[in-house]
This record gives sequence, structure tokens and C-alpha cells, in this order.
Amino acid sequence: MSKYAFGVDIGGTSVKMGLFDVNGNVLDKWEIPTVKDNRGASILPDVARSLQARQKEKGILEEELTGVGVGVPGPMNEEGTLLGGAVNLGWGSFNIPEALGAYIKVPVKAVNDANAAAFGEMWQGGGKGYDSMVAVTLGTGVGGGIVVKGRILVGACGAGGEIGHIHIEDREEEACNCGNKGCLEQYTSATGIVRLARRYLASHDTATVLQTERLSAKIVFDAVKAGDRAAMEIAGQFGDYLGKGLAMVSSVVNPEIFVIGGGVSKAGEVLLSYIEPRFREYAFGNCKDTKFALAKLGNDAGIYGAAALVLL
Amino acid sequence: MSKYAFGVDIGGTSVKMGLFDVNGNVLDKWEIPTVKDNRGASILPDVARSLQARQKEKGILEEELTGVGVGVPGPMNEEGTLLGGAVNLGWGSFNIPEALGAYIKVPVKAVNDANAAAFGEMWQGGGKGYDSMVAVTLGTGVGGGIVVKGRILVGACGAGGEIGHIHIEDREEEACNCGNKGCLEQYTSATGIVRLARRYLASHDTATVLQTERLSAKIVFDAVKAGDRAAMEIAGQFGDYLGKGLAMVSSVVNPEIFVIGGGVSKAGEVLLSYIEPRFREYAFGNCKDTKFALAKLGNDAGIYGAAALVLL
Repeated sequence: MSKYAFGVDIGGTSVKMGLFDVNGNVLDKWEIPTVKDNRGASILPDVARSLQARQKEKGILEEELTGVGVGVPGPMNEEGTLLGGAVNLGWGSFNIPEALGAYIKVPVKAVNDANAAAFGEMWQGGGKGYDSMVAVTLGTGVGGGIVVKGRILVGACGAGGEIGHIHIEDREEEACNCGNKGCLEQYTSATGIVRLARRYLASHDTATVLQTERLSAKIVFDAVKAGDRAAMEIAGQFGDYLGKGLAMVSSVVNPEIFVIGGGVSKAGEVLLSYIEPRFREYAFGNCKDTKFALAKLGNDAGIYGAAALVLL
Repeated sequence: MSKYAFGVDIGGTSVKMGLFDVNGNVLDKWEIPTVKDNRGASILPDVARSLQARQKEKGILEEELTGVGVGVPGPMNEEGTLLGGAVNLGWGSFNIPEALGAYIKVPVKAVNDANAAAFGEMWQGGGKGYDSMVAVTLGTGVGGGIVVKGRILVGACGAGGEIGHIHIEDREEEACNCGNKGCLEQYTSATGIVRLARRYLASHDTATVLQTERLSAKIVFDAVKAGDRAAMEIAGQFGDYLGKGLAMVSSVVNPEIFVIGGGVSKAGEVLLSYIEPRFREYAFGNCKDTKFALAKLGNDAGIYGAAALVLL
């Protein structure tokens, strides 16, 4: 009888792995380094070896293992084939379940890492209890993952949930990493918040603690909590962009809940207080009542979601 | 053996009905008036009577009938329950399959009419051969329907695909029918195109055929085809708004194809020539290659999609 699954989250520096039971409990978790030499050729064999060692150590029989889920940092189709490769790993285009399946004899499923994290938050995190949600990851960039009726919305070319690249500002002069101008990510990622802050400080004389420090999204939101006027204005701009962007998303997929994660979300509930009112202003009809929550699983969301791929 | 299905599209003036075979051929189609007296209490009994008469006339046995699909002009959940009613019919909130099932003894499924039309276009129209598409209806308003992996994306409160109410313009002073300001519908519906034209004419002295006529979207696009400079500028604004809006949609659900329908789409291919280049400018990465097509089924899309609900 199937009792367990492994969740694997492959990153540019390390591979996170976890052993889960069918109820969503993490029984063990560990990491191995990501060896990128030789176009990352040893990554999957390393993963397989590590999983097999752990399986043996725990005395888990093959028939007790439902399978292995994998999150990979690159665009992927429904079948788990990388479309255009995973640049951070040195990988080209190939099918992950097939490739990992050559080393380990259990069912393998693979999705993009942002989608895995979203799926994890739905299973055991901020979206628990909902089967239709949009996860928003505010980190160096802005990522997203969409779950509709309990299934990840992958999209025709793996770009489902790429909400960081929604066009939100016509007047932008700087280019986004994607090459376009005015993407949501340019104002609501950690670096985007710093961009907003720099621009604010350059055009205002307001006394603010922000002028004396090296800027970061954390510093901005710490200043917000301390009641700094300028920081609150900057957070207001951030909230306007993100609220407006998520209102657009809600008019498209109409989720039950938005789950906000990533490094920026460590600011806590104050973040939602800047997003939600602006969301409700721009959202359509009933969508104004869409729920918001903070993500709960932090960096473990990926391994949870990867395991859930084979368990749910 | 199941061979046939009825598709029903309930509108404010008439109810369209069609008899389909499993291959998507329409074998018969007809209409009955929508009787809205007494809060529309006789609409469903009228539909049932009409379907039963047609079934008898065609000599179709009960076991040959897969079921009845119904499109209804109001927001609905996955189960076919109207959320807040259908104002154009005088209906409150109730479950359509249950209510119609009281009069007719075959399986019944129901969806919002815009979603039914989208599903019809996927089955036998402009989206045939694709299982992931977004249908855009440019009529008096702007509606939409999203199909992901062959299933309609209904949304948590029936607002999936309500792309007409994506916020697209910060500088709008007039309110949209939904109460918000700057919705995509305000610039890309038939009335939206007239709005753009009026504003253009009010601020430009360009000689144009548009000044001498009663404005409509059709007149604007006829003038575009005749090479009228002002009309082409207005079409350019329309294309910029819609291209930008659909680029946002593609960053969320990443469909294989956009299918453009509704009265405005009668302008033909020239319409796409204004939308596609702007879409590609704003779209993210691979999404730039998303396909575009015109809808093919016209006013019959709803009955096709309704029948497909029970046949697919």
C-alpha cells in the first residue's frame, strides 16, 4: 500500500528533498548541493542516489512509495518536458520524469518550481482548504502559480501563472529582465520595491529613515511598521500596483484565495493591509470578496508541492 | 447507445435550441420566445416541452440522448447554480440542472452563456483542434470564456473569463457598467469603440468620413478598410487596449489560441491586424507566439457549446 512520497525541489545552489506521508506530514528533509558541471549531468543521478539511500535508511518498501515529485526552475509543459531548458542548472530541453525514471523505479512527475510551491501552499500552507487559488511569490522577481479545481494550470507553453510579467505601467522607461517595460515585477518584487523607494526619495524631500540606510524591501517595510511617512507612501505605491495586478488576475481565473509568499511576505500582515484595499477597488463584482492569506511554508513550499504532485 | 444531445441557449428575447450528433453536426435548430412574465417561471417548462416535442418528431429514443446542455445569461458556479440570479430573465438563484430535470428525464448541465459560446468555438469553431483557449466576445460589452485542457474555467464565483472588466486605464473618468473605471470593455466593446471615436473626433481636426455619419463600431471599421486616416488611428487605440489586455490574460492562463468573436469581429481579419502586433509587444516570452483566430459560429456558438457540455 502506498504510504509515502518524496518531494524534490531543484535549485541553482542546492536540491531540497523531503519525505512525506499521505496526510501531508514531512517525516524527513535534507539538502544536497547542485552540481552544475558538465551541463548539470550529475544532478538527477545525485538526486536518485540520495532518495534511494534515504528510502533504504527508513526501511521503506518500493510498494509503499507512491512516487517522486520534482520542481524544476524552468518552463515546462504538462508532461514535465523542459521547454527551452533550465538556464540556472545548465540543462537543455528534455523530459524530467523520463530522465529521472532511468535511475529510480517509481512514478515521477515534474513541474516548474513556482507551480510546485503554489501546489504546496494549497496542500498544507496558506491555501489549505481551498482548491482554487493563486499563489504569488514576491522575491527577487515575482512568480506565481495557479491552481484550478485542485490542479496546476500549466499553460500551453508553461507560462501559466507568470503574473510577474503582466503589463501594469505604460510610463516605464527601464526594461524588465524579460525585455518588456512596465511589468508588475518591476514594482512589486524585492528589487521593485527598492526601485519605487529610490524614485520616491529622488523626488521628495520628506524626512525619512530610508535616506540613512542601504535600501531593501525589508528596510522599507520595517520603516512602515515604525510609522515612517515616506515608507508608507512607497508601500502605498507597491500596494496599488499589486492590488491592481491581482484584480486583473481575478477577472481571468477568479480564484477563491490569493496566497502571498516569497521573501517580501516576511513583512507579515502589514503587507496585506496595503494590497487588499487596492485589490477591492479594482476588482470586478463578486471578485471583490476574494480572500487573501500569507504563505506558510516558506522555502519548504516546493518540496511539499512536489510530493503532492504524486500524492493528490 | 448515446448518439445525440440538445444544446439550449437562453437569451432575454428568445431561447435558441439545437439538436447535435456526437460528431458535432447540428441536425436541427430552432427558437422559441423567452416568456419573462411571472419571474420567468415558464421558461424552463417551455424549453422542456419544446425539446420533448422535437425528440418525438425526430424519433429519438431516450437511450439515444446523452443529455441537455444549457447556457444561461448569469454568473453560475460549477454545479450550474445561478449566483445572484439572471436579471435579464427575471430569475433568482437556483440550480438549473435540478430545475430543468424536473421536466425532462435526461442528464442536464448548465453554464454561463459566455462560457457556453467559448466551449462551442473550441468544439466546432475558431478554436477547433485546441484544448486550451480564450474566447473573447466583442459585443455591446466584452465577455470571455476560458477553456483549459478541454474544460471551462468557471471560477470560484462564476467570474472566470470576465476579461471585459480587467482594469486597463488609470485615467478614465467615466464609470463602466460594473461601477469601476477604466475597464477593458470601455474601449474595446462596440460601444467602447464608439467612445474612442467620439473622443478622437473631439480632439482632432482630421478630415474623416466618420464626422458625417452616425457612429458605430461597424462604421469605424468600414472606414478603416476604406483607408480613412482617423478611423485607422482609432482602430490603433482599440488594438492597443485589446492587445495589452490579452497579453495580461496570456501571462495568467497562457492559452494556445485567442478566438475573437462577437458583433465587432464581423469586421474580419483587419481586426486581428490591429490586435496581434500590440499583443506581441506586451506579451511575455513564449506567449508572444500565441495564435489568434476569428470566431466561426456566430450566434450559434452558445447552442454548440451547450451540447458539447454533455457530449465531451
